[in-house]
Amino acid sequence: MPQYTAPVRDTRFVLDHVVRLDSYSNLPGFQAVSPDLVTAVLEEGGRFAAEVLFPLNQVGDQVGCTRHDDGSVSTPPGFKQAYDQYVEGGWTTLHAPEEFGGQGLPSVIATAFGEYVLSSNQAFEMYHGLTAGAIAAILVKGSDEQKQKYVPNMVAGKWTGTMNLTEPHCGTDLGLIRTRAVPNADGSYAITGTKIFISSGEQDLTENIIHLVLAKTPGAPESSKGISLFIVPKVLVNDDGSLGERNALSCGSIEHKMGIHGNSTCVMNYDGATGWLVGEENKGLAAMFIMMNAARLGVGLQGLAQGEVAYQNAVHYARDRRQGRALTGPADPEEKADTLFVHPDVRRMLMDGKALTEGLRALCLWGALQNDLSHNAATEEERLAADDLISLLTPVIKGYGTDKGFDIAVTSQQVYGGHGYIREWGMEQYVRDARIAQIYEGTNGIQAMDLVGRKLAQNGGRALQAFFKVVAQDVAEAKTDPRTSPLAEALEKTNGQLQAATMWLMQNAMTNPNNAGAGAHSYMHIMGIVAVGLMWVRMAVAAAKLIDENSGDYDKEWLEAKLVTARYFAERVMPEAGALRRKIEGGAESLMALSPEMFAAR
Amino acid sequence: MPQYTAPVRDTRFVLDHVVRLDSYSNLPGFQAVSPDLVTAVLEEGGRFAAEVLFPLNQVGDQVGCTRHDDGSVSTPPGFKQAYDQYVEGGWTTLHAPEEFGGQGLPSVIATAFGEYVLSSNQAFEMYHGLTAGAIAAILVKGSDEQKQKYVPNMVAGKWTGTMNLTEPHCGTDLGLIRTRAVPNADGSYAITGTKIFISSGEQDLTENIIHLVLAKTPGAPESSKGISLFIVPKVLVNDDGSLGERNALSCGSIEHKMGIHGNSTCVMNYDGATGWLVGEENKGLAAMFIMMNAARLGVGLQGLAQGEVAYQNAVHYARDRRQGRALTGPADPEEKADTLFVHPDVRRMLMDGKALTEGLRALCLWGALQNDLSHNAATEEERLAADDLISLLTPVIKGYGTDKGFDIAVTSQQVYGGHGYIREWGMEQYVRDARIAQIYEGTNGIQAMDLVGRKLAQNGGRALQAFFKVVAQDVAEAKTDPRTSPLAEALEKTNGQLQAATMWLMQNAMTNPNNAGAGAHSYMHIMGIVAVGLMWVRMAVAAAKLIDENSGDYDKEWLEAKLVTARYFAERVMPEAGALRRKIEGGAESLMALSPEMFAAR
Repeated sequence: MPQYTAPVRDTRFVLDHVVRLDSYSNLPGFQAVSPDLVTAVLEEGGRFAAEVLFPLNQVGDQVGCTRHDDGSVSTPPGFKQAYDQYVEGGWTTLHAPEEFGGQGLPSVIATAFGEYVLSSNQAFEMYHGLTAGAIAAILVKGSDEQKQKYVPNMVAGKWTGTMNLTEPHCGTDLGLIRTRAVPNADGSYAITGTKIFISSGEQDLTENIIHLVLAKTPGAPESSKGISLFIVPKVLVNDDGSLGERNALSCGSIEHKMGIHGNSTCVMNYDGATGWLVGEENKGLAAMFIMMNAARLGVGLQGLAQGEVAYQNAVHYARDRRQGRALTGPADPEEKADTLFVHPDVRRMLMDGKALTEGLRALCLWGALQNDLSHNAATEEERLAADDLISLLTPVIKGYGTDKGFDIAVTSQQVYGGHGYIREWGMEQYVRDARIAQIYEGTNGIQAMDLVGRKLAQNGGRALQAFFKVVAQDVAEAKTDPRTSPLAEALEKTNGQLQAATMWLMQNAMTNPNNAGAGAHSYMHIMGIVAVGLMWVRMAVAAAKLIDENSGDYDKEWLEAKLVTARYFAERVMPEAGALRRKIEGGAESLMALSPEMFAAR
Repeated sequence: MPQYTAPVRDTRFVLDHVVRLDSYSNLPGFQAVSPDLVTAVLEEGGRFAAEVLFPLNQVGDQVGCTRHDDGSVSTPPGFKQAYDQYVEGGWTTLHAPEEFGGQGLPSVIATAFGEYVLSSNQAFEMYHGLTAGAIAAILVKGSDEQKQKYVPNMVAGKWTGTMNLTEPHCGTDLGLIRTRAVPNADGSYAITGTKIFISSGEQDLTENIIHLVLAKTPGAPESSKGISLFIVPKVLVNDDGSLGERNALSCGSIEHKMGIHGNSTCVMNYDGATGWLVGEENKGLAAMFIMMNAARLGVGLQGLAQGEVAYQNAVHYARDRRQGRALTGPADPEEKADTLFVHPDVRRMLMDGKALTEGLRALCLWGALQNDLSHNAATEEERLAADDLISLLTPVIKGYGTDKGFDIAVTSQQVYGGHGYIREWGMEQYVRDARIAQIYEGTNGIQAMDLVGRKLAQNGGRALQAFFKVVAQDVAEAKTDPRTSPLAEALEKTNGQLQAATMWLMQNAMTNPNNAGAGAHSYMHIMGIVAVGLMWVRMAVAAAKLIDENSGDYDKEWLEAKLVTARYFAERVMPEAGALRRKIEGGAESLMALSPEMFAAR
């Protein structure tokens, strides 16, 4: 019953008018990005996602994955065939470097397509999704031999990759890990330990799985300064590239989860498995963060993607379902009742979904552009500026994006009334699937601390100042047109709340660092509102310009809807920033005053 | 692994110092309410809930209910034995009138106990829970014969009652129902139609089920003015009270739901079943609202209850789990890591849970008191005043209470990190179970419209003025003590936001009723913040007084924790009111501007 259409027009609008792809056509990776190629990727990719992956989303949830007695795992019915098509279509290769068999396209293109896959079937996406991060870590930190041995097959989708970090007693605090890596005579290591929550840890889609595993070598320092990263293939790879013996590792069980049942989240047992060090001993954290940062942007995209598919269905339901009458008198007097669309409170929920999904889409794609520019911009200065922006915004995209993605899934479910609670309608799955994105790859509380505790102060606050400068530029431009100047003023005011909150944190974290921690989550949300608000200003300016040009690429009503939605964002979302600022200014005192016993004393 | 302890101390504090039970000891029903009786109900009731019902909560979720080919339904393992104990203990009889075998206690006592049952096992509670509303409808609208025939066994828990409203094509808009009631020669009616989402529609706990069914008689007006309410027993009851033939009704299927799996939510088929009119033809809506209002307060209590059990577990986990170090330096240097309690952002989530559960508990119990007073207060004036207050606050308790209950369940789950997403830990069940409360018995959007569209304007706004007067009185009292005056001032300011929002709605709903609809949900939340804030003022004043009295009933640290939590509520929750007001003042324009096509045009 649920349905999904890839939002190709909206993606295209963002790529052309927010990301402004054409202004980068001289850069490496962007040369190949002709308008025709973009159209092909979005349209064919959108069709593949909607027609092949989406129909497997509910069965994936209901049947889930099965672990057999021999430790092998079956993915849900249809996943293997769909995965084969995914690989044959070359969809795994978009952003990967050409020398390893990739298409070398910018990550912004892969991100646009990635949203569609995630909306269609988040659990499916994760089988290849984490591979991208593993490839990135090997490419940056691995040896040439490792690159040649593993990366081409991972790019091709012949093998997948995983991230093995968490253990039963430690998630966030990786300094505590107990998995051991003991050197073998031949330069490899024997890896022993238990990892939990390993997404795609075992599956029947590919002939090999390249596990990237954090472990401690003998005598390594306690703390995160003593962890190392290892390549531990499920099946050992011979020097000629052929597959050799099965490695000493196995899936001990599949976790019973709230959602994403279609993905096999495994307990992985390493029983003296053979692994190879990536980079240097005790420098695993830096390599891990290469994977992690890629994963965090991907998870932010999951927030948007689950919000989008939930929103689309809520819109569909609201158009079909007739219940009650408009407050202003019957809208369809010939029918027994009006559609849900006449009710302002239903509109509120749908406009929240519209304003946030479209805004987050722009933010995710603009963030991906910064990521590309941080590698490929023409000058070192531009590379640095882009790197600053994406470092600053990664926790915001992940934390704010997934909090809002979950909220949209919940409000879209609410539009259905009682039917939203019934499995067959599909809405409750989006809520359950969206929920994980707030938790994994660093909980959103960790994202907030990353933002406030690390990113704000880095390089003397250079990134934040750069962000403020971008906001100021867009505000100035938008003020010149009466159609967008109220929006520009609203963003300016909201950004003022962010600046005031920043000042408060700077002044008060010195005397007590808990003041920073106590305000971090609210701060992340204010920055999310400003960042999405910036995107809305940019979209509104573009829409106004296109209306004037009357170019015909978009119809006028659609462009005017952008202006209305931007206004809604200013009226209905931006006001939250003031309340969040006041929460921050409450400080840490009332949070930290009570003993744990008083929390428990009911 | 999850755990639950009934919050007896906190309930007692509210009953003694917010509800001030002892000041009503002269009223009918309250005479029996000695301190010893309250202690007995809370302690024995709390123990029963925690020891008998709570252990069945996870199995109820995992096994769920089973419909057999003959239409019979098995409840989860253990439910039948627990239900028998529930009945034997007399727990179904607390609030019911003595002439029908009840204990005649005030609803405030039943509400206190009800919270514990709902925290322990919401799905279980619903088997008897809806019976209370059905009893209320029969007592007010039924004939003497109907009362004698059905009520005693329902009070005793020997039979349960259900509410049959929703049909596949109509939920909120009951004017659309199609179930038909055709008069038989003997004064009964033949009921034919399909009802969906019928909680406890079929079960194996009791020998009979008394269905209360909305249907239309031949020639009845279209619209809700043409619906009638019928008693339709599963098994017909002979005049001597013995059970007769099986009625022509059956459970067609059990819905597959997001949560509350332990409750059988049924599709009910009525195939010319024999039913008896309750009250008059075409006056079913009024009778239905008697059930509904009771049910709405019960659902608000579900919000609190799911929040409470989730919060308790999050506190427990945060005390046990060691991860990372305090920002101010190691708290437990001898351990490898500090507990989660050192992290301000974890504290934020737990303080949200503490401030909201304790505040909502006070609001639910104070609301139940108003309910009691509306029937039993000494003067007509007092009865009217109490009726005004509970009419006004019913949508707030239901809507704000369940929105916040869900939020607390989600943030409490978040405290667990990845483990919160794993079924065995129990947290994700609280989220799924809490979710329904925002939807059923009128979605929270409907509650908001009931508040803004009906309750505000009733009797010239008398109820709202009375509410403002109560707030002003408590504010004035709290201002006299420097320990509570900042809180009083914060509440005054927040109430000012509510007053300003009220004014805006009054002025702008006239020109366009959609302005009321567009702001209704935000308005309901502001009023929820003010109502819970009022409770916090009252609790803080009481705590300060008890500290001075040094009475020994509560230890000083516990009372001081009330003052800290009140301050947290003022600093961290009340600021939301300003943002909500600004949202309301955005009006309906940007919500209503777009055509449905533009929502769908992606």
